[in-house]
Amino acid sequence: MDLRPPAVRLLLEHLERLPGVGPRTARALAEHLLTAEPGEVEALAASLDSLHQGVRLCSICSLLTETDPCPVCADPERDRATILVVEAPTTVWAVEETRQYDGLYHALLGHLSPLHGVGPGDLTIDALVERCRDDGVREVILATDPTVEGETTAVYIAKRLEGLAVEVSRPASGIPVGGELASVDRLTLAQALQSRRRV
Amino acid sequence: MDLRPPAVRLLLEHLERLPGVGPRTARALAEHLLTAEPGEVEALAASLDSLHQGVRLCSICSLLTETDPCPVCADPERDRATILVVEAPTTVWAVEETRQYDGLYHALLGHLSPLHGVGPGDLTIDALVERCRDDGVREVILATDPTVEGETTAVYIAKRLEGLAVEVSRPASGIPVGGELASVDRLTLAQALQSRRRV
Repeated sequence: MDLRPPAVRLLLEHLERLPGVGPRTARALAEHLLTAEPGEVEALAASLDSLHQGVRLCSICSLLTETDPCPVCADPERDRATILVVEAPTTVWAVEETRQYDGLYHALLGHLSPLHGVGPGDLTIDALVERCRDDGVREVILATDPTVEGETTAVYIAKRLEGLAVEVSRPASGIPVGGELASVDRLTLAQALQSRRRV
Repeated sequence: MDLRPPAVRLLLEHLERLPGVGPRTARALAEHLLTAEPGEVEALAASLDSLHQGVRLCSICSLLTETDPCPVCADPERDRATILVVEAPTTVWAVEETRQYDGLYHALLGHLSPLHGVGPGDLTIDALVERCRDDGVREVILATDPTVEGETTAVYIAKRLEGLAVEVSRPASGIPVGGELASVDRLTLAQALQSRRRV
C-alpha cells in the first residue's frame, strides 16, 4: 500500500517538477521539510506566495523588481549612456557582483529561436531600439549567452541598431580565469586564440 | 548594488537552507519559480502549507499519516504478529514498495546517539516494548540503518526485548543486487562474506 500521506504525495509531485529535482532529491527535501520546524516550512511557503505578488518586470528594462521603474533605471548616479543587454533578467545579479559595470540594463526575456517559435516580437527588442533612439545612449553591450541562439540574437539586434549613433559591443569569449587550458572546450579555446592579445 | 528584489532574496535564503541546495541550485530554482506559471508556484506553496497541518505521526507506530491510527495500524488484513522497526517514518515507503512485507511498522524517530544527547527516552522505544508486551507480537525486525548508531540502537532494543516472547531479527547486510563486488565498500563485503550462504 502507498503509505505516503496524500499531502506528502502532493508535495513530492510539486517538488519533482522543479529543475534538477528527481524522485530521490524530492524525497530528501520532503523528509527535511517534514522534520523541519513548522515555522520554517511556513516561511518558505510564504516566500513562494509573495514571489509572484511582489515581483514584476521593470517597464523600461524588464529587470525583476518590486518597484517600477527598477532601482537601476531610477538611479541618477548610474551611467545612462551604456546599456548592457542580457537574455534573462536574473543574469544581471552576477554582472552586478563584479562591481565592474555601472550602466543600465536591458533584459530581452529570452533569445531568438525560430524552431521554438520565438521571433523578435516575443522579446523586448523593440523597446531596446526605442531606448537607444531616445535616451542619449552611446554604447550597447550585447551580453547574450555565447550559444548559437545567443549569437543569432546579438547579430539580429546589432543589425537593428545600425544607423543609430550607438557603439555595439559583445563581451570577450575566452578561457575562464583560473581555468586550465586543457579543460576548456574546443570552441572556447578557438575563440580565445582568435581574440589573443599582445602582452 | 544588489539587484535581487527583496522577495527573491528571501526565497533564496529559504531555499539555501534545504539539504543539498547551495547558492547555485537555489538560484536555478528561483529562476524557474520566477518564470513558472503563478498557479504552479501557488500550488507548491499550498502543498507546503498543508504539510504540517495535515500530516501527523500515528499515535501507535509513529508513521506519517493524515488519520490516527495510520492506515497500517488500522488495517485488519495486515499480519499483526510482526513489527518492522525503522529509524525514520519515511523509510517504510521504500519497504512497502518491495511488496515483500505485510506486517506492522514502528518508527523510532531517530537512533541512539549519546554524543548528540539522544537517549532511549528521546525515541519511541518504550512504546515499542509496550506493543511487544501487549499485542500478541511474535517477531520484531530491527531495520535500523547499517551504521554504528543504527547497530547500537538495534542492540539496545534487542536487550530491552529480552524475556518477552518475541523473536528479534535484523535484515541481512550484503552486496546490493546488481552491484559489482569490486565497487562494494570493505565493511559490506566483509559482512557479505561472513553471512555467506550455501548454494
